[in-house]
Amino acid sequence: MTDVSSRFIRALKREKVDRPPIWLMRQAGRYLPEYREIRAGAGNFLDLCYNPELAAEVTLQPVRRFSLDAAIVFSDILVIPHALGQTVDFREGVGPVLDPIQSSRDVAKLDASGVREHLDPVYQTLSRVKAALPENVALIGFAGAPWTIATYMIEGGSSRDYVKTKTWAFGEPDSFQKLFAVLEESIADHLIAQVDAGAQALQIFDSWAGLLPDGAFQKWCVEPIGRIIARVKDKKPEIPIIVFPRLAGARYMEFLKIEGVAAVSLDQTMSREWARDHLQSGLVVQGNLDPVYLVLGGEALKQEAEKILQIFAGKPFVFNLGHGVMQTTPPEHVAELCDYVAAWRP
Amino acid sequence: MTDVSSRFIRALKREKVDRPPIWLMRQAGRYLPEYREIRAGAGNFLDLCYNPELAAEVTLQPVRRFSLDAAIVFSDILVIPHALGQTVDFREGVGPVLDPIQSSRDVAKLDASGVREHLDPVYQTLSRVKAALPENVALIGFAGAPWTIATYMIEGGSSRDYVKTKTWAFGEPDSFQKLFAVLEESIADHLIAQVDAGAQALQIFDSWAGLLPDGAFQKWCVEPIGRIIARVKDKKPEIPIIVFPRLAGARYMEFLKIEGVAAVSLDQTMSREWARDHLQSGLVVQGNLDPVYLVLGGEALKQEAEKILQIFAGKPFVFNLGHGVMQTTPPEHVAELCDYVAAWRP
Repeated sequence: MTDVSSRFIRALKREKVDRPPIWLMRQAGRYLPEYREIRAGAGNFLDLCYNPELAAEVTLQPVRRFSLDAAIVFSDILVIPHALGQTVDFREGVGPVLDPIQSSRDVAKLDASGVREHLDPVYQTLSRVKAALPENVALIGFAGAPWTIATYMIEGGSSRDYVKTKTWAFGEPDSFQKLFAVLEESIADHLIAQVDAGAQALQIFDSWAGLLPDGAFQKWCVEPIGRIIARVKDKKPEIPIIVFPRLAGARYMEFLKIEGVAAVSLDQTMSREWARDHLQSGLVVQGNLDPVYLVLGGEALKQEAEKILQIFAGKPFVFNLGHGVMQTTPPEHVAELCDYVAAWRP
Repeated sequence: MTDVSSRFIRALKREKVDRPPIWLMRQAGRYLPEYREIRAGAGNFLDLCYNPELAAEVTLQPVRRFSLDAAIVFSDILVIPHALGQTVDFREGVGPVLDPIQSSRDVAKLDASGVREHLDPVYQTLSRVKAALPENVALIGFAGAPWTIATYMIEGGSSRDYVKTKTWAFGEPDSFQKLFAVLEESIADHLIAQVDAGAQALQIFDSWAGLLPDGAFQKWCVEPIGRIIARVKDKKPEIPIIVFPRLAGARYMEFLKIEGVAAVSLDQTMSREWARDHLQSGLVVQGNLDPVYLVLGGEALKQEAEKILQIFAGKPFVFNLGHGVMQTTPPEHVAELCDYVAAWRP
């Protein structure tokens, strides 16, 4: 399955590479004029996610432009609640809007039986991208983690304080775990199916992990992700898995204890020296340029990239951002960064 | 100056106390009906901040109801830009709205000369509160840190991505430092004046410290706060200072290196074991109950409070939240928590 010539996969397996691989979260997206063109003709956002031809095209766009070592399938973490039967809508200028679930009665209505069938277009996208990608560019599949997906399902979108999700989790943990049981199974299935369709690595996004206080973090971020990884690894023992528990601070360390984690993706707030000293001996680290530097470009961008390379490139490392590419990013700046990393040698 | 009978001040000075003191960020506020009553008759939010009689009254309200060991003066971090001449407005349901500054030309227009005079009502509030407080309840003064205040001044309020502030800071650090020079001086002056008016401890709120990527965090959070503390300590060597670099993760450690920091206030995402092992030997820690537990109340609240006490109470510790009291908090739950901590013994 694994392409031995991919620098990205070799780095994830801690094998020797000439220089750190690079890919960027949200590298396919609105900052690219060719994406905006496809998007304008594709209907709504979910229509694009479920259109294998167009989703494959936008997945490939940044790989054509930039010297990237991996492509990540164009999809969304909210295809899971959508596949479970929840109403999910993406509104321009607002973001995702869901018909919120509010009780264990709503959880009982979620139907996990049709998830794979519903998400078949995503697997078709992966197959198409895999067939089109050059051998040295790896293909990444992904899913949201249960906690992050649950916040959207319960709040009905983004929230200021996530108090509904938290009161449910802290106040009625048994009922909350019922929701997680459905999510863990669906997410693991979805990840396995993506590997079947050609994904050579997986990333699990827990974008709102940082909302969880200590204790709850172990219970609703670390342990569920651990169970998902165990399910995936049972079927796909070779697949490298990257975990992104955004804003988890020193609690990134918890993933040293979880079997089957190849790498952690660091958000930009992580202390790099601390991560090098406490994480990088056990895990590959990925990250963590602030996306604002890509908006700035020029010397500020290069200096910051150089700092990150100096700190991390001595041990297994994948260059990435600490969060997704911003919409206002000039594509030339992305080219500058990718060229800089591509030319860099330890 | 220091009241030897105050449990809070003794804990901050690492002296022996019978049990950890407790106060709560935003303990005066909208969740209290008696606050809402005053607020309704006070005009706009800034009118209330600048009305010594009413501001003193709302500062004292939670102390009357609950067994708290400290009161924090009712004011706002945005009185500093307001005192510097920037237009600041608080809109119902929106939050603060400022006429944003955009360039070093705008910075040059800020006028630091009238800050103390403009903020005299805050000092009058402190004097009134001090006169009314029981001897065993300490009085806390506060200010925002330059980074957090700058985000509001530049974005014109809250922001999704804080890209204006970050591009200025990362792209034109010299010009950004000019703004910080004004802020550091004003903030230090404001803190010193609060001590003159009766404050027995100070807290510096860097609520948006977590936005800063590594490197920038040292330059725009740690170093400016260090310079402010040096100025304050030069005039008030005895005053204990608490720093709250919210969401700084493992980078809280940076404050071990800053002279004059008595305590760090931990947000709820901090790993408690890590904080006990790496911070509490050098600094008093304060925190870090998730405010959602106060919305929940009951057993969930008590169990979480007990966990926090078990981890931290063996060394110098102040019980607090990880963020402010939420508006939907039932006051009875605050009473439950305060009584629980008041009755707790190591």
